[in-house]
Amino acid sequence: MIKIGILGGSGYTAMELIKILLRHPEVEITCLTTRQETKLHVSEVHPQLAGMLDLRLLPLSASEVAEQCDCVFSCLPHAASASAIHEIIAGGTRVIDFSADYRIWDAELYEQWYQVTHPDPDRLGEVPYGLPELFRDKIRNSQVVANPGCYPTSAILAMAPLVRHSVVDPNSIIFDSKSGVSGAGRNPKLMTHYPECNESIAAYAVGQHRHTPEISQILGSLLSPNTQSNQMANVIFTPHLVPMDRGILTTGYARLAGSDFTAEDAIELFRNDYADEPFVQIVNKPPKTKDVTHTNGCHICVKVVGDYIITLSVIDNLIKGASGAAVQNMNLMFGFDETTALR
Amino acid sequence: MIKIGILGGSGYTAMELIKILLRHPEVEITCLTTRQETKLHVSEVHPQLAGMLDLRLLPLSASEVAEQCDCVFSCLPHAASASAIHEIIAGGTRVIDFSADYRIWDAELYEQWYQVTHPDPDRLGEVPYGLPELFRDKIRNSQVVANPGCYPTSAILAMAPLVRHSVVDPNSIIFDSKSGVSGAGRNPKLMTHYPECNESIAAYAVGQHRHTPEISQILGSLLSPNTQSNQMANVIFTPHLVPMDRGILTTGYARLAGSDFTAEDAIELFRNDYADEPFVQIVNKPPKTKDVTHTNGCHICVKVVGDYIITLSVIDNLIKGASGAAVQNMNLMFGFDETTALR
Amino acid sequence: MIKIGILGGSGYTAMELIKILLRHPEVEITCLTTRQETKLHVSEVHPQLAGMLDLRLLPLSASEVAEQCDCVFSCLPHAASASAIHEIIAGGTRVIDFSADYRIWDAELYEQWYQVTHPDPDRLGEVPYGLPELFRDKIRNSQVVANPGCYPTSAILAMAPLVRHSVVDPNSIIFDSKSGVSGAGRNPKLMTHYPECNESIAAYAVGQHRHTPEISQILGSLLSPNTQSNQMANVIFTPHLVPMDRGILTTGYARLAGSDFTAEDAIELFRNDYADEPFVQIVNKPPKTKDVTHTNGCHICVKVVGDYIITLSVIDNLIKGASGAAVQNMNLMFGFDETTALR
Amino acid sequence: MIKIGILGGSGYTAMELIKILLRHPEVEITCLTTRQETKLHVSEVHPQLAGMLDLRLLPLSASEVAEQCDCVFSCLPHAASASAIHEIIAGGTRVIDFSADYRIWDAELYEQWYQVTHPDPDRLGEVPYGLPELFRDKIRNSQVVANPGCYPTSAILAMAPLVRHSVVDPNSIIFDSKSGVSGAGRNPKLMTHYPECNESIAAYAVGQHRHTPEISQILGSLLSPNTQSNQMANVIFTPHLVPMDRGILTTGYARLAGSDFTAEDAIELFRNDYADEPFVQIVNKPPKTKDVTHTNGCHICVKVVGDYIITLSVIDNLIKGASGAAVQNMNLMFGFDETTALR
Repeated sequence: MIKIGILGGSGYTAMELIKILLRHPEVEITCLTTRQETKLHVSEVHPQLAGMLDLRLLPLSASEVAEQCDCVFSCLPHAASASAIHEIIAGGTRVIDFSADYRIWDAELYEQWYQVTHPDPDRLGEVPYGLPELFRDKIRNSQVVANPGCYPTSAILAMAPLVRHSVVDPNSIIFDSKSGVSGAGRNPKLMTHYPECNESIAAYAVGQHRHTPEISQILGSLLSPNTQSNQMANVIFTPHLVPMDRGILTTGYARLAGSDFTAEDAIELFRNDYADEPFVQIVNKPPKTKDVTHTNGCHICVKVVGDYIITLSVIDNLIKGASGAAVQNMNLMFGFDETTALR
Repeated sequence: MIKIGILGGSGYTAMELIKILLRHPEVEITCLTTRQETKLHVSEVHPQLAGMLDLRLLPLSASEVAEQCDCVFSCLPHAASASAIHEIIAGGTRVIDFSADYRIWDAELYEQWYQVTHPDPDRLGEVPYGLPELFRDKIRNSQVVANPGCYPTSAILAMAPLVRHSVVDPNSIIFDSKSGVSGAGRNPKLMTHYPECNESIAAYAVGQHRHTPEISQILGSLLSPNTQSNQMANVIFTPHLVPMDRGILTTGYARLAGSDFTAEDAIELFRNDYADEPFVQIVNKPPKTKDVTHTNGCHICVKVVGDYIITLSVIDNLIKGASGAAVQNMNLMFGFDETTALR
Repeated sequence: MIKIGILGGSGYTAMELIKILLRHPEVEITCLTTRQETKLHVSEVHPQLAGMLDLRLLPLSASEVAEQCDCVFSCLPHAASASAIHEIIAGGTRVIDFSADYRIWDAELYEQWYQVTHPDPDRLGEVPYGLPELFRDKIRNSQVVANPGCYPTSAILAMAPLVRHSVVDPNSIIFDSKSGVSGAGRNPKLMTHYPECNESIAAYAVGQHRHTPEISQILGSLLSPNTQSNQMANVIFTPHLVPMDRGILTTGYARLAGSDFTAEDAIELFRNDYADEPFVQIVNKPPKTKDVTHTNGCHICVKVVGDYIITLSVIDNLIKGASGAAVQNMNLMFGFDETTALR
Repeated sequence: MIKIGILGGSGYTAMELIKILLRHPEVEITCLTTRQETKLHVSEVHPQLAGMLDLRLLPLSASEVAEQCDCVFSCLPHAASASAIHEIIAGGTRVIDFSADYRIWDAELYEQWYQVTHPDPDRLGEVPYGLPELFRDKIRNSQVVANPGCYPTSAILAMAPLVRHSVVDPNSIIFDSKSGVSGAGRNPKLMTHYPECNESIAAYAVGQHRHTPEISQILGSLLSPNTQSNQMANVIFTPHLVPMDRGILTTGYARLAGSDFTAEDAIELFRNDYADEPFVQIVNKPPKTKDVTHTNGCHICVKVVGDYIITLSVIDNLIKGASGAAVQNMNLMFGFDETTALR
């Protein structure tokens, strides 16, 4: 049994993470921290967990958690997360970071988008990007893993085969993403107040969402895969808030590089690239987010329309887009079957 | 053209009120106040009003508003509202109060439920309860009207004929009410954060909701209608939050006083009592809240099951339950056709 | 490994059942039947199952299924279900019946409410009502179990301790239930067409819902628990359709038999009665349906208001109200840990 | 008072049309037809209209309606609509057609997308496309008007200024549209069954939606505005179904033709082009569909990101996208103020 600590236990990703870990036969959750009201029983914060986990959220420091645990999941905000992780890893504890802190490989780019000085810049570029479908081997051997953003997971999985095989112009890619509201976190604000966002859809952060450089960097890295280069694909990314709890649909558009590429070619390409992936399914009909909510799956459909290829990919933002992916990474890091607790 | 002022212009009831008043040929909105961020254009606070009303929300005092207006709608919180109204009416301006301040006729009862000293206790019992279906004549001749609560409107209209005609035991009445989330106002809080209340229903304030004494008082007054007595009907009232924007369904249960009262009798009783009411419809099938949302209507259905009568009544909480009723009251107070701007 | 067959595999309860059984280490799903379009792969009917189960829905007869399976779940409509079960049990296969066919112990009462002659009346009253919290021992030893209705599960669990201990007047009980739309099944009809039921709540089948006699019978049986008597509790039951996928909240009202029973007494009574139940939690705050959706849990809260006791109970209609309960029953019948695959 | 007939009165667009027309001081609804169950009172089909309109739906022929009415709105399906209209117009009655029959100016193109022979091909190209913002003068003088599709209205209004002024490459345009479910009509089917489409988003008809040629044709016509030419803009159009009743958001992407065009230029261009339009608002923040639902407004926001321009436009699919636009067209055709009944 490995001992698990969770930093920042009051949000939605922490709750989903706990639910998944409770089904995992090889782990035991031993501490949950919070920076908010403390000493609350976990069932007071998350009534769904009543009768399932008997722990309180405590104001523990990162080093206190590190001492008690073999594996720490950090659900802290960016910057705070890297500071805590910097402290934790000295003792050998392994870490999966939900924040964006180690996703961007270039400190300058990070600082440009996150408007903060990176607290641990030396590790940037060494921490693998925790998308097992692209970086499985690196993840296995790393002490720290940067868990991907929810939008990037849906976007990258949908476009990676096309970029890697040079089927599309990497500078023509547009991602139009639609997300459930849980992606905005658990802090009440006007945008996510029920009567404001219910029965309504809107774009937000047009041209400015922080997941943009993450997508550009990872797709760019596929253009010259042998180096963890900083070549970027110039993507347009527009997120939208949809009146539903969870799920992301990303509709991807890219101009075909050549004219003789058919829908059948596309489907075959995807089926080959993802043949051994336990959580990626290539489907024939446009997938609904509901096909994958409450699972770690990603369903992808590809269509050719004129000289464009259109990709449709769905995930659960809290699972494959966050906590499920994190446990998948943990499974790889600790040598468990990759699908444990995720089926 | 009468000049209209609105105190507290940033909430949902104010927005609906503005939309209704913009359709009213006899009135002109001349000032909107706010106690929050000021000088915002109304379209910045309520994007729905872009291009429809060119006003800014200003930090005006009650007396400044009174000077500029013939009729003031107060959307202020309780206690603050009565204080403002006390100031306004000296100059002869008429007022419709959305708060609970003048709904309860007994200062002690008010203070027991609202936990605050009433700022204007002498006027209690003189201000009519603004439900035209019960108190039309008093409303016509009053300078101040207490606009009813949303739940009480749905509950009282459904049970009034049964209580008035002594068909049911007045101490056996149970109201199980279901409301859309806009009823909780526009201030973000955890309970109304989208991922908390979406896809979920729950009761709240069980046995403790402040609309309880309002319902008990008005139904009680029907037992001895010639005096504005303080006889109370002992009702049980349980509100529930439903994942929808607007609408209230109140399911009422009351034990029949006699055994020979049929469903047909009930329907006839209701059709007679409400024959001349422009906004009350007696319907045969259980009504949906959607049958009346965005209207000032109240649909009521009655069923007899065993020795109980079950009433089902629906309104739009923001219209018949708030802003529509307020305009209906204004129409009565100023001698306009009662349905102006409400059809 | 026991072999599982499912009769009627295209609906929502079948889908949830499959998802639960796929997590169960002791069982294997070997056949799925349908009376609709056949030979479809299960992932064409339920895209959520893509990559998880490789079976086709076949037009098998009940006896063909019986031959291949150790345990059959029948998701057939009433009457059709009892006919199939009658055929199946001859060979010794065990059956869990989702239909109402064996829930009512009296053929006349069944025929009065279901308007059909019962195809297997002799077995009525011998098949246990599959609510483990009340009938665990009988379930363990039975070849057939009548899986309870979703509304009755939420209603009976909430009121059973009060009826059993004579705390309330059994003829004063009112259940006001609110259900998500999946409870209405998967056949498209106007009532469950999205723009009809979204953003709206309504009662339906007032005084006429078929779950009424089921609730009355089971609560009645608690009044004289030593006989499986036909004493009925006269309950009023009003179901409502709520704009959400899943979940039931039942608000129960009952008049206290005596005047000295407090809220604390009620909570203690419930905590004692359900102390050993793995899936029932007594909670302090009014529970949300979301606290239990996607789980087999039932959360119950009790309040005393005046001389009434109010119970609030929530379940997931598809899990504790259907497929989870069915697997709980299977676990009991086959001697597995009762919670297997249900945590 | 002009007399109004509505062909096909049982759907959502007919209901919204009736609600708008009931507020119009110059018209009177005199007949409603249906091809479904007949002689129903309009309030049985549309409970929202209880007490508002006392008419029954009758199985009248087109010519019977034409005799009784000055203006007919056809809510019939394509092909059936043109057949009826062909009959109606002989007598001089004016017609607004909600179907696609007269929107496409080329019979061959129509037949390719609609898979049916056009019943009245000679009139194609003569009937104006009923988007007042582009074709106001033609609409004023026409006996028949082709009311636009809901998606095309949102797409064309957002991109017209950019195409007309040659700011973007007309063959680089992508429209990613998101619609509420009422757009799919009132006939129950699995795709719009509540538990299927609630809490989920999906694309549909990718590359195949019939609104595609309509958008391409109208935007193409702006390239050489002096001829009603058949030049097409090659657009990519992907519709999505969003879990909400009503509203369309169309996110448009187009590559800028030159590199020196700024966001400020774009905003100025739109403000100029739409300066006199009563129903189009250019807004600074990404609009929500809720900003315009239940109104005839269209809010548009433009952003420049890299060498792309992104347009965000919202309408109510049932009003500006259908019944509001139809009344706007009627107002033009009969010389009423264009905004009557639409504010």
